[in-house]
Amino acid sequence: MNLPDELKPTPRVLMGPGPSDVHPRVLRAMATPLLGHLDPQFLALMDSTKRMLQEILRTRNELTFAVSGTGSAGMETVLVNLLEAGDEALVCVNGVFGTRMCDIVERCGARLVRVDAEWGKPIDPAQVEKALKSCSPKLVAIVHAETSTGVWQPLVEIGNLARERGALFVVDAVTSLGGVDVRVDDWGIDALYSGTQKCLSAPPGLSPVTFSPRAVEVIEKRKTKVQSWYLDMGMVRKYWGAERAYHHTAPISSVYALYEALRIILEEGLEARFERHRRAHELLRAGLEAMGIEFVVESAYRLPQLNAVRVPAGMEDGPTRKRLLEEFNLEIGGGLGVFAGKVWRIGLMGHGAEPNHVNMLLAALNMLRSG
Amino acid sequence: MNLPDELKPTPRVLMGPGPSDVHPRVLRAMATPLLGHLDPQFLALMDSTKRMLQEILRTRNELTFAVSGTGSAGMETVLVNLLEAGDEALVCVNGVFGTRMCDIVERCGARLVRVDAEWGKPIDPAQVEKALKSCSPKLVAIVHAETSTGVWQPLVEIGNLARERGALFVVDAVTSLGGVDVRVDDWGIDALYSGTQKCLSAPPGLSPVTFSPRAVEVIEKRKTKVQSWYLDMGMVRKYWGAERAYHHTAPISSVYALYEALRIILEEGLEARFERHRRAHELLRAGLEAMGIEFVVESAYRLPQLNAVRVPAGMEDGPTRKRLLEEFNLEIGGGLGVFAGKVWRIGLMGHGAEPNHVNMLLAALNMLRSG
Repeated sequence: MNLPDELKPTPRVLMGPGPSDVHPRVLRAMATPLLGHLDPQFLALMDSTKRMLQEILRTRNELTFAVSGTGSAGMETVLVNLLEAGDEALVCVNGVFGTRMCDIVERCGARLVRVDAEWGKPIDPAQVEKALKSCSPKLVAIVHAETSTGVWQPLVEIGNLARERGALFVVDAVTSLGGVDVRVDDWGIDALYSGTQKCLSAPPGLSPVTFSPRAVEVIEKRKTKVQSWYLDMGMVRKYWGAERAYHHTAPISSVYALYEALRIILEEGLEARFERHRRAHELLRAGLEAMGIEFVVESAYRLPQLNAVRVPAGMEDGPTRKRLLEEFNLEIGGGLGVFAGKVWRIGLMGHGAEPNHVNMLLAALNMLRSG
Repeated sequence: MNLPDELKPTPRVLMGPGPSDVHPRVLRAMATPLLGHLDPQFLALMDSTKRMLQEILRTRNELTFAVSGTGSAGMETVLVNLLEAGDEALVCVNGVFGTRMCDIVERCGARLVRVDAEWGKPIDPAQVEKALKSCSPKLVAIVHAETSTGVWQPLVEIGNLARERGALFVVDAVTSLGGVDVRVDDWGIDALYSGTQKCLSAPPGLSPVTFSPRAVEVIEKRKTKVQSWYLDMGMVRKYWGAERAYHHTAPISSVYALYEALRIILEEGLEARFERHRRAHELLRAGLEAMGIEFVVESAYRLPQLNAVRVPAGMEDGPTRKRLLEEFNLEIGGGLGVFAGKVWRIGLMGHGAEPNHVNMLLAALNMLRSG
């Protein structure tokens, strides 16, 4: 065969739903020569990574670490470890990622109860309350930041309802963590998963997860083996914990990247980081509205880091995104599911939530529209 | 909290069971700024990666790609996609990784038939033939290069037996690929998984896999959903194939690394690479034997890339490996399972299969022994 060309991708500005632009310090960390996965220096890095994750998740949960897969592997980890065949699970659905949770719940052999809201709207706690009157689920699962719609879901009330009914509260924080506040302990979250490639500004490949002591107890009392060997917490926690028992080879370079990304976040400070996301979003909002472009989500529930807007009249979805990519090296996301062809998803995530990103995109859109 | 220290691991020489030393060009590839996972340039890289994998696997299998997880995720991918509850599976076991396959087979709800050999010995085809007389398995699974023992398993005869009985032939090539020959099509292999962190000399995080048309047919005819959403071939293949349907966010940087690692392998040429592994192994063997250190595996079945040797009299396992790491920055592996405390595993994998690695280790061992 002919040898493929050298690796020389065109530098892009990533303003889609993720991956987002990775901080140069994180890229440099990725190029660090490897340690062995049982080297004492690597184990120390894992411990520090865990402590930093606890800090940004605002939790004391001992079982806090990064799953060796992307955010969807984190979703599967949480669900397959907490559910057994015959259990009941209530899943809130208002976009792609709630739908995905339903699919996994069913693959666990669990009985699914759905609470739906229209795409682009938050889940109504009253609907959850009503559903909980006629079922008794082991867990209630919900997406904090729906990447497919841009909805910022309030969690506290629904978490309280879950707890009152004795259910575990499970949260998808793939797109929220690092961009808006996530308070695991204060909000009574029992299990949560995230991803590295959104507001943490590291490459995709790891999924930070955390389990409360209540969730750990549920895992310890399982009657059956977890259906996934790779994601079985009973074994993985022995490697991330004090025993350091070999399970699978940790993705060393990805842990380096996460370690550096978390240091950058803590250097900046969580509040300053959230404020930066808010400011970038406001700048984008003002610019888009000046162009007559409308948001999908009403302002009270809009994520600053994932801006879903309607494709404006006079511009075509595919051709416009293609020109943004080819002529400006700017990537924005198209719509998924019912939003395909109708919605753009503009990411302002982590390192990329800053005015130059916004200004580049607004100016490019204006140029494309006018000519 | 106090901010953890900057990332500055001590440079190590990795001569354990993996991860192995990563080629500097691959490290540099890891630091490349990211493309989006649906960027046409990234899709082209995926296509080239697939073609290079086909080349080094010596296969025309259309379904050839890299799973977004480490080698164990590849193992799980192959087994959960091919097996359904109630199926029968024959697994050959002579070390940790055969045992792991049994665990996963049982989590699939399949009926397990085991053919065992002593650790350090290859599986005897006559035993497989005998077992096949009293069962009718959907697949026969075996490890090509047992990382826990250093056994190089001959495959052709057992593959023929499987096919004669109408079973799929499944091979673990985690430690073999890139170090010794792997001929998927010639040997009638129906499904195979590997890892990036052994003889491919890339960081851990991806698992190259391939499925024959027969295996694809089995997947297409499944009656039940695959128990893992993340590893469901029916969906993953739509992203790696022409449809490019979104499934999960690909680990972009890890694909960059694999791409560059595969280019390096094809530049060197497979035969030259295998010869380099053989020569490094011979140099190591001569040096260890001169010290009176014995191999676990008889010479006909010794892997060049994974040298399992008995801890010699007069040297202690843990303290010696600790001194190698602390005083010489050399990592070798300890024994697993029944070999714990008794065996060392010395890796000569990929980029690290060269005389300087061997000479450093032999000289350090001699220094530790004499003083």
